[in-house]
Amino acid sequence: MSHTNIILALDYGGTKLSAAIIGIGERAWRALARVQSPPQHDASYEQATMRALARELLKGETPRAIGVSFGGPVDAARGRVLLSHHIPGWEDTPLRDQLQAEFNAPVSVDNDANVAALGEYRFGAGRDCDSLLYVTVSTGVGGGIIIGGKIYNGADAVAGEIGHTICDLRGPLCVCGRRGCVEAMACGPAIARAARERLRAEPHVSSTLRAYGDALTAADVARAADSGDALAQNVLEDAARALGFGIGTAITLLNPMRVVIGGGVSKAGERWWTIVRQAARANTLPQMRVDIVPAALGDDAPLWGAVALAEELLGQKAERV
Amino acid sequence: MSHTNIILALDYGGTKLSAAIIGIGERAWRALARVQSPPQHDASYEQATMRALARELLKGETPRAIGVSFGGPVDAARGRVLLSHHIPGWEDTPLRDQLQAEFNAPVSVDNDANVAALGEYRFGAGRDCDSLLYVTVSTGVGGGIIIGGKIYNGADAVAGEIGHTICDLRGPLCVCGRRGCVEAMACGPAIARAARERLRAEPHVSSTLRAYGDALTAADVARAADSGDALAQNVLEDAARALGFGIGTAITLLNPMRVVIGGGVSKAGERWWTIVRQAARANTLPQMRVDIVPAALGDDAPLWGAVALAEELLGQKAERV
Repeated sequence: MSHTNIILALDYGGTKLSAAIIGIGERAWRALARVQSPPQHDASYEQATMRALARELLKGETPRAIGVSFGGPVDAARGRVLLSHHIPGWEDTPLRDQLQAEFNAPVSVDNDANVAALGEYRFGAGRDCDSLLYVTVSTGVGGGIIIGGKIYNGADAVAGEIGHTICDLRGPLCVCGRRGCVEAMACGPAIARAARERLRAEPHVSSTLRAYGDALTAADVARAADSGDALAQNVLEDAARALGFGIGTAITLLNPMRVVIGGGVSKAGERWWTIVRQAARANTLPQMRVDIVPAALGDDAPLWGAVALAEELLGQKAERV
Repeated sequence: MSHTNIILALDYGGTKLSAAIIGIGERAWRALARVQSPPQHDASYEQATMRALARELLKGETPRAIGVSFGGPVDAARGRVLLSHHIPGWEDTPLRDQLQAEFNAPVSVDNDANVAALGEYRFGAGRDCDSLLYVTVSTGVGGGIIIGGKIYNGADAVAGEIGHTICDLRGPLCVCGRRGCVEAMACGPAIARAARERLRAEPHVSSTLRAYGDALTAADVARAADSGDALAQNVLEDAARALGFGIGTAITLLNPMRVVIGGGVSKAGERWWTIVRQAARANTLPQMRVDIVPAALGDDAPLWGAVALAEELLGQKAERV
């Protein structure tokens, strides 16, 4: 096996595993493979599947470096997965060392929100923004912080938890046990739940959302809002306001050059964006910039961020030589 | 004039000007001078007084570097004071270039909360804490952030405004025009105001604070609380809870190694500290450390931070040589 000029990028996404190969300095994939995970799988399934995907793409070649995005808390400095909130068996896994041994190349691992932040900073909507807050709004609300062009992990590798800053002490219960967290008011499931509660509480108000019953999702709410459904619009606006409030708080503390929002809920339409921006502006000081833009890399942000992680490894190696 | 091995540290404090001389690498002042400013002075008074203080201390010697703490927003990268919230005439002043020309030495200027944060990081309660949040609670609530051992200024040089994160949307009006900012609930004047309002609202409750009338200060409230006055204790606890909530939010976003609290209100006693810590812990995720300690450098934190700024300049110079 000889060292070639390729990078391996891996994304352990919880419901989906992705692997890709790219040439160093290139900006288009040479090869990419994705596998949707079966329900109720575990860490050993993910490990074996990802290994197989990578081997298939590499075709016997050895990558120069490997970048890894993992969908859960990671001790990036030690390259260890702390746990997965969704998949059993990942507790305290030395993923960096395992992959290093397997593929004979240096490996850098970080949490998916952090890696996506790095991806948007290097290749996406946050280019040249040396300080950047990335927020992903989907089944939860996560965040990643770039400072000085690097991922800022924090003392316990959990910096950027904007989803668990509190928006309203009297708000709905959050998975973390507190009330009124941004996540509990702004993520996809929170939007669906708020809509179901409104439908129940206001049985005489007509809404196209009644047709969905308990299967109602945030995407349904967004579509109905777009079609002029007043109840759906109200629910979506409340969620956007909560998110904007949380982003305003983060701006007040971090004063980043830019905020990039990704995740499924960020596709909820122009009205949602307007309210997010208004609420953020209303919750900061006038001298602070409020520059909030959509993510550019979509679902591929973690994979692109993994490329950036791998390139950082190569840069560091070059400096040491 | 020959270059000697001394550093000049300056602190433009709003009500007080301080200048000090220290040997490079030394940790005790060779000379220190302070002047209390007269009421209603202006920028030109401060400029002339500080210049005279510094000249007197320097006795004709030229410092190797000058560090400056300024009590207002500063564009640190360009060395310009943006304004003072208290003293007229400081608008857009190129303080770095002025001092450089005057004293023939490199100058670094930053905002007082940032400089105090750097002082506590280098010489005080935050030693070796590469990520650090410094919070000062006095006539306002300010903050400074250290990341990677350096001041983090933010995109508009206003990062760390923990005083203007919102604690309770239904709270008291803040100077910034919004409601329920941490500053409006936790700073000294807010404590005094809350006590006066409680005394008025509860005319039949006995309290030693009634003797003070409109001259009542936060220090009076703290002393009365310490002596067992129930109304004073309640007021102080509310303020501590608001501050702790804000610190919890900041920890959730920044996950710093440590939080250091300085300023006059931080001398309010053990009960205040206990509640600040409890409220911060209650407003973060369990996996985040909550390490909150008193500032070690007291009122001298900006001056020591100015020394650290000057030493950074010398370090950078050395690297460039």
